[in-house]
This record gives sequence, C-alpha cells and structure tokens, in this order.
Amino acid sequence: MKSSRPVAVDLLIEARWVVPVEPHAVVLEDHAVAVRDSKIVDILPQSEARARYEPAEHVQLGEHALIPGLVNSHTHNPMTLLRGLADDLPLMEWLQGHIWPAEAKFMGPEFVRDGTELAIAEMLRGGTTCANENYFFPDAIGETYRKHGFRAVLGLPVINFPTGWAATDDEYFERALEVHERFRGDALVSTAFVPHAPYTVSDASFERIRLLAEQLDIKIHLHTHETVHEVNEEVAKSGRRPFQRLQELGLVNERLIAVHMTELTDAEIEACAAAGVSVVHCPESNLKLASGFCPAEKLRKAGVNVAIGTDGAASNNDLDMFGETRTAALLAKAVSGDAAAFDAAYALRAATLNGALALGLEDRIGSIEVGKQADLAAVRLSDLETQPLFHVASQLVYATGRHQVTDVWIAGQRKLRERVLTGMDEAALVVMARRWRERIAAG
Amino acid sequence: MKSSRPVAVDLLIEARWVVPVEPHAVVLEDHAVAVRDSKIVDILPQSEARARYEPAEHVQLGEHALIPGLVNSHTHNPMTLLRGLADDLPLMEWLQGHIWPAEAKFMGPEFVRDGTELAIAEMLRGGTTCANENYFFPDAIGETYRKHGFRAVLGLPVINFPTGWAATDDEYFERALEVHERFRGDALVSTAFVPHAPYTVSDASFERIRLLAEQLDIKIHLHTHETVHEVNEEVAKSGRRPFQRLQELGLVNERLIAVHMTELTDAEIEACAAAGVSVVHCPESNLKLASGFCPAEKLRKAGVNVAIGTDGAASNNDLDMFGETRTAALLAKAVSGDAAAFDAAYALRAATLNGALALGLEDRIGSIEVGKQADLAAVRLSDLETQPLFHVASQLVYATGRHQVTDVWIAGQRKLRERVLTGMDEAALVVMARRWRERIAAG
Repeated sequence: MKSSRPVAVDLLIEARWVVPVEPHAVVLEDHAVAVRDSKIVDILPQSEARARYEPAEHVQLGEHALIPGLVNSHTHNPMTLLRGLADDLPLMEWLQGHIWPAEAKFMGPEFVRDGTELAIAEMLRGGTTCANENYFFPDAIGETYRKHGFRAVLGLPVINFPTGWAATDDEYFERALEVHERFRGDALVSTAFVPHAPYTVSDASFERIRLLAEQLDIKIHLHTHETVHEVNEEVAKSGRRPFQRLQELGLVNERLIAVHMTELTDAEIEACAAAGVSVVHCPESNLKLASGFCPAEKLRKAGVNVAIGTDGAASNNDLDMFGETRTAALLAKAVSGDAAAFDAAYALRAATLNGALALGLEDRIGSIEVGKQADLAAVRLSDLETQPLFHVASQLVYATGRHQVTDVWIAGQRKLRERVLTGMDEAALVVMARRWRERIAAG
Repeated sequence: MKSSRPVAVDLLIEARWVVPVEPHAVVLEDHAVAVRDSKIVDILPQSEARARYEPAEHVQLGEHALIPGLVNSHTHNPMTLLRGLADDLPLMEWLQGHIWPAEAKFMGPEFVRDGTELAIAEMLRGGTTCANENYFFPDAIGETYRKHGFRAVLGLPVINFPTGWAATDDEYFERALEVHERFRGDALVSTAFVPHAPYTVSDASFERIRLLAEQLDIKIHLHTHETVHEVNEEVAKSGRRPFQRLQELGLVNERLIAVHMTELTDAEIEACAAAGVSVVHCPESNLKLASGFCPAEKLRKAGVNVAIGTDGAASNNDLDMFGETRTAALLAKAVSGDAAAFDAAYALRAATLNGALALGLEDRIGSIEVGKQADLAAVRLSDLETQPLFHVASQLVYATGRHQVTDVWIAGQRKLRERVLTGMDEAALVVMARRWRERIAAG
C-alpha cells in the first residue's frame, strides 16, 4: 500500500498529554494537535501525526499537558493597575475611600490601555487566552486586545450615573453602539452589554439593553446577587428580589451572563437552568470582599452552565485562572458538604468550555476539537511540585501553579514561548506599572 | 571621629524590604540582616551595615522581600508520594479505598525517607523552613530532616491499633521514647507527641501522653474537631464533645496543638484562649475534604494563637504555604462576614511566628529578630504579577506565588540559591517520585 503524500500544516504540537475537555474527562496520551489557518485541523496519536503532516513548525512537549486556553469569564483588566492598592477593608470603605477616588483621578484611555497590557501579559503567562472584559473606555481596551492578538469580549458599559466614559444615558448607548460597530466582524474581539448591576441601572436602561442585545445578537454581562445586602435592598425598595426584577424585564434567558450569584434560592437556581442563564463564579473575590458563597455545586447539579472569573486584580489580587479554578473546586466541596463535588474534570471544563458557552463562543473556543480555533496552553508537569503524577486533571487543578504554563497560542499564533512573551517586553511593562504606582500613590 | 574596625560576620543579606513580623505589621526598607553562627546578630539600614560589617558572604536582593521562613504547622510529609492518588472522593472512600491500602502496602522506612525528601525539596522551593510533622516511622523521617538540615518537630505517633510502626500500646510508647532520646538536643529536630485523634486514642493512652509530655517538656499535636461527624459521634458515645473529654483528661493547656477545629462553640473558643491552646488552621484540606469551616477570625479575635498548616499532600495537594496562607486570609473574611478580617499582616504572622509559638520554638524562629536563628526566605517581587506594588504584606499574601521565592536559609545555611536547591538533586528527586508512582499505581 502506497503511503499518501504528507499534508502541509502551520503547526504540529506533540504533547505527553492532550486534555481536550470535550469529550469530557478524557486525557489523550502521546497525542498531537495539527493547526492550519488559526484552526485545529486534527488530533491524533503522535506516530500517525508524524507520518501524515509536514508542519512549518513542530513543537514537542514531552513533559506537558496541552489544554484549551483558559477563559476568564469575568474581569476588569484595566484595574490591574490598582492591584493591592487597598486590601482588608470593608467593601464601602474600599470603594469610596480608595478605588473610586483613584478611578476618578486616573481613569481614561491611557490608564485602560496600560492596565490592559499588564493584564494581557499576566493572563498569557498563566495560560488564559480569552477575557470577558467589564470596564469603561472599551474602545481603547479593545484596540489593546487587538494590538496584542488577545481574544476578548468587550463590555459596553451602562450605568445610570456619569463617568469619564459617558455623561448621560443616551451617551452610554451611543458610545456602546460606536464601539460595537468598530469591532464588528473582528476575528478576536467581540462585544457584550455590561449593565453594571441591578441597583445602578434603571428599568428603562435595561429595556433598551434587552432590545439592542437582541438586535445585535450579543450577550448581557451583569453583576448580580453579589451580596445578601444587594438582595435585601431591592426587596426593601420594590418588594422583589433582583432576580425577579430581571425576570420581569425579560432578561433571564440564554443571553444573560450572571456574575457572582452568591444569594440564590432553589427556585432561582431552577429558573437559571430552565432559561439557559450562565453563571460566572468568582470565588476569590467573593471570599476577599466577604460577599458570600456561590452555590456552585448546586448550580452545576441543576444543569446551569457555571464558568469561572477572577474579577479584577483590585479585589483578588491576581488574574490567575489556575488559582481561581482550584479555589472554585475546593470551595464547592465545603459549601455543598460533599468531597466529591465539582471534581477536577468539571473544574477544568468550567474554566474553559463553560466560559466559552457563557460568552457565546462555544463554536470557536473552549475545547481542543477539530474546527475550533487553536487557543492552547502547554503546562509543564515535570516540576517536583507536580510529582508523582497519578491523574492529569487532578494534578492540573489541585497541584499546578500558573508558572508551569510554558507556551500559549491564540488562533494558532504563539504568544508565550518557553515562558517568554513573544510580543511584549516584560521589563518595559514592569517599568510602566511602577510609573503608575508612583502617580497613583502620589494622587 | 575614628570609625571603628568592621566586625566579621558569616553573612550579610541586603533586601529591598525586610518584613520582620515582630514588631507587627512593620516593613523595613533597604535594610540588611547580619548573620553569625546560625543566628541573626543585627538588623539595620544597608548603608550602616556596609560600614559596620565585613561579611564572608554578601547577598544583595534589590527586588526582594526578606521574610522569616514559613512554618508549616501541620503536615504528613511522607504522604507527598501519594499526592493526587485519589481526589474528589468522600472521606471514607478516600481513606478506605485508596490511602489506607497504599499505606498498608508501602509504608516503611524507605517510603517515609523518600517522601520526606520530596517534601523537603518542595517546602524549600516555597519558602518553608520548618515542618510540624505527623507520620509513622519518625526515626527515619527525623534522620532525613537531619541529613538535609531542615528544621522539624517530629511527631511521636500514638494510635490504638497496630500499624507498621508499632503493634501494641506499649510498643508505641517505647518507640516514642526511643525516637525522643535519639533526637534529644538536636539543633534542628525536636519532638512532640502525636496522638492521632480523640476517636482513635483511649483515655489511658491520653493519660500516659499527658504525663510523659510534661516530663519531657514536649508538645501534644492532635487532630480534633475536624468534622461535625467526629463531634457527634463522641457525643453519641459518651455524652461529651471531644473538647470536653480533652479538658477532663487535663490536655487543654499550652502544650496542645489542636489541628483543624472546624466545629467549635463560643465557649470552646474562649476556653482555648484562656488555656493557651494553639489552633492549626488547614483551610485547603478542610475545604477539599468538605470537613467544615474553621472560625479562624473568631479564634484570632478571642486571642487564640492561630497557626497555618497544609496538611498532607494527599489531601491538599501541595505543601504550598503561600497558597495556604492566602486561602486562610480569604476564607476567614467570608466565614466571618467581614472583609477586614484576618488581614495580610496577621496572615503572615500566622504563617510564621504563630507557628513557632504553637511548636514551642518562638524563642528561636518565626520572626527576624536579633538572637533568633537565621531561618529566612527571599521573595522576588519584581515579576509583573506582583506589579504595581503598593503594600508589601498585601502583595505577599494576595498576589505572590511560591515560585517567586528565590533564596532560603535555615540556621544561616543557604538551602536554595536563585531557585536552585543547594543540597538536593531535583532531577533525581523527580526520577525517585516517578519510580514510586509506578510501584503505587501497580499495587
């Protein structure tokens, strides 16, 4: 039998383990992933791959797990410049005494560009390849993501008071539509509405958001049920819990990316499942701000799509999706009282494919499947901290640090090569961050 | 004025920041620590240090925080060989189906030596310089600590059933006294009794432990009130909570190192404070095994000495005191409902000086003070993940990964130099761990 002629591909990555996420809880040993034109075109045993493909670039990862790039499903990346500015404070003192004054003084295109650049570098060095962004000046933020070839869903902010980004309700919507138009059709950067929270957005604004989100076919990314205080305030004001108000406004459906959700009744959990709402769990932010405990395992069991987000570095204080995923898996067990809850395979899914689904990108990213974008992270498991190695998924979730990420690709483009950023100058980023530190501390 | 002649010291470490822990919540900028004969002899501004001292070795850490070596106040280090063997399982299935069978088959001097070596390497690479050990075959474990110059309190196990270590109650005590004698007067390795838990140790054995611990002047290191199940079982059996039984046995005093303590009444917390009991909080183990939530902030507020432990790598799955301390600080806020709880300065103290106090080593380690042993860790804070830097303690607790530890000293001896272990072969350790993996997986 004549062997056929090798097929040209851009990239062939051989890894000791490939963790595709879909199919669920599978680990492929000694497999290879072939990439052409930004997409995954094949996943097969290494020996077959070498015979079948002629790659322009051939990467061999003998000690590594290759995983889908992590999807950070809720973050405020420009706030990376405020990392650790004020910690260990009650929420209102933190916001009113520190975060809002700093934002009032510094927030603008330069701040968001620099903060987003620092965040992109941190995310890439930790295996994250997609961010669900939620901050002001999305135009400047989006240009920064585009410049660095980083995948993101830009938030289009709506809040019923003036900020540096917009002064009136109408202006928020005008600017939202401008930004949406600017990035329409972009290969990496898309948009979602980000009404801040039920207590800062009027019914009229929610109504406009609902109509526009349907027209533009984009998601609605909303902080809600973050604390019992928030829920009680709405009940005192209107007699309804925020979730009921959102239901009455027609917002509880597949478009809704509901962030935090620490205070939920069983009926609300069932309603989320029935409506196809995605919940983004931000466990470290919820802990650090004493917001409460999201019932992540109950949500999972009810069939709700649970994704994971770091929240901003001002309240976390990092963009470490490995750490966040571990915390999610650990905390879910204690909160549900079940050591078998939210297992390692599910935790990895929450950090990847569930995030993609929340963002409406499940056809493009979130798993290593043929036809999807080559958004990939390689994780070195030969460090003594990850030895002995009995189960790859468990090791990734419970023992691996983000510094073990060695290589990262987005849409087939290498962004991190053996721990070095290919398109960013790390030393210059540190200098930039220190310059902001001086300005902010002086302010 | 004539300047006096420089004083010879073994080591002078200059650091951008020195975090002494005592005095509390202080950060010394551009200071130096002088070391002679294993001890800290001076802490002073760098410019003065250069004029005053002539060091045999001079280390300059321009981007680093120098902190006291971390004290892991509860661990089962030989179990590092069982890391990730079985996760996401209910406690009894985990123990009976996986951990106990593996231990029955493999536990012995070779297993504990190799497991302890792997653990020492991991601890050093993460800034930990002292372990409160709790495992069988303390003789072989102790020799391993001694060989590597690692500081440890060896557990002398007592449990009312036969194991590979001892067959009868009398044999447990005989062997305990042998091990104690063997390490008496050792500069680095001391001992404590480790009765396993109230539900596995008889009143008669506790009585012998109490008397012997007083005679030998050593601590008693005990798992207790780990779960509500444990407490309820004792109540059903004897009508008393385990803590009351310990009180009646005369064990609730300054000798007691009580580990886990997730189930506590306010009266029990007050009793711990009044009696001088130390509590070791193991938040990640408590979460992962769904054991419950230790009221760490309530304990702190009541004046109880709260230390931090990782527990064994079979239930954590690492020996990462940076991660554990962050989890402790985050979790305490959510459990107490107060974002200002268990602040960064206190978290660092819990991971260092409080551990030293729990172990009875507070005169020797746990802080950077003149006269104490030079157990030190240098942490690089120039990585972009720890920029910008507003507050050193906050950055160490909330944003720093253990891989940012660059250099470690124990009793003035350098154990880690620019991330490389000085006395251990990392590649050989990985080979050893992999050999155990094959044996255990086959068994």
